[in-house]
Amino acid sequence: MVNYPGLNKKYQSKSLISVKNTRGMSLEKDLDDSNTYYKEVNRALIYKKPTPIQVVRVDYQKRSSAKIVEAYFRLPSTTDYSGVYRSKAIDFEAKETSKEYFPLSIIHEHQIAHLQKAKFHGAITFLIIYFKNYDQVFLIDGDLIVKSYLVNPKDKLSYQYFVEHAHLISQSYSPRLKYLDLVDKLYFKE
Amino acid sequence: MVNYPGLNKKYQSKSLISVKNTRGMSLEKDLDDSNTYYKEVNRALIYKKPTPIQVVRVDYQKRSSAKIVEAYFRLPSTTDYSGVYRSKAIDFEAKETSKEYFPLSIIHEHQIAHLQKAKFHGAITFLIIYFKNYDQVFLIDGDLIVKSYLVNPKDKLSYQYFVEHAHLISQSYSPRLKYLDLVDKLYFKE
Repeated sequence: MVNYPGLNKKYQSKSLISVKNTRGMSLEKDLDDSNTYYKEVNRALIYKKPTPIQVVRVDYQKRSSAKIVEAYFRLPSTTDYSGVYRSKAIDFEAKETSKEYFPLSIIHEHQIAHLQKAKFHGAITFLIIYFKNYDQVFLIDGDLIVKSYLVNPKDKLSYQYFVEHAHLISQSYSPRLKYLDLVDKLYFKE
Repeated sequence: MVNYPGLNKKYQSKSLISVKNTRGMSLEKDLDDSNTYYKEVNRALIYKKPTPIQVVRVDYQKRSSAKIVEAYFRLPSTTDYSGVYRSKAIDFEAKETSKEYFPLSIIHEHQIAHLQKAKFHGAITFLIIYFKNYDQVFLIDGDLIVKSYLVNPKDKLSYQYFVEHAHLISQSYSPRLKYLDLVDKLYFKE
């Protein structure tokens, strides 16, 4: 969800599809709000990790505060979100697409390795994908994405693929994205 | 483990104790190395979260890369380390002290709340504290620190307190800090 300038431009410039998204949802903000809600009602502790930034130069002129004057965005080596829910570690990445498909190439190789390892050690892993043109947000199991990526990291998974293999996240006023209801259903089968 | 200039100065300047630490251990580096080792041998997936930085101004002059030209360190709202081990969420903070005591005031209020919530939802929580003068690293249960903090957030826990209530982490060549052996013993009693 970080604005890596080079990456974003790539996806924004060539959109061939008419814009149907009138709500102007911000996936990152809606997830933050939902996680704040879940935290406040003591349902889960899930948070966004800070954006990895490489600090090169810091100005210590002011005694009280340091000003970073040269720094660069780094590629993430883990996923964006993690936390704990019902005693299980939760680990997921959130992405949005303004196309009719989700291009696997916007996930970094390190993130795929991270999802694999997290799953291996027992975490619940998934991705949350926002299809802007449909104003729909899907939760898809981490393993499905990892497997597709390992077959072909440049593959584009169609919207239809998500309709068939992923799970539509209900939206409400609060929490904005009720994704833990799906986590209950998919990962805590009683 | 972030260098908040104001904080660090406070603790470095008034050290009254002669320096016995000849090895010059870096707690952060040793934890990073240990976590890399644990990851490579597939024992656990534990990582340091990026330092939270508030980006104010970015220079997009170069098309390929963005240069951050104004940013500030933010106080952390979570702990420094998290991950997954034996299907459980792991959450801990690492601190070092060059005194004969560990001052609770170097933990931020938000971090205490975070440790409480993480524990409530089922995570294994602890702190790793490096006493420089003794070249000893302790693992102390998160609840013990939270309870002390809630009684008096300005309390100073003596080295002796750690000898009695915390657990000495064995050091080796690889991993540098064998803290997961203690986690096994303390949180996975068979």
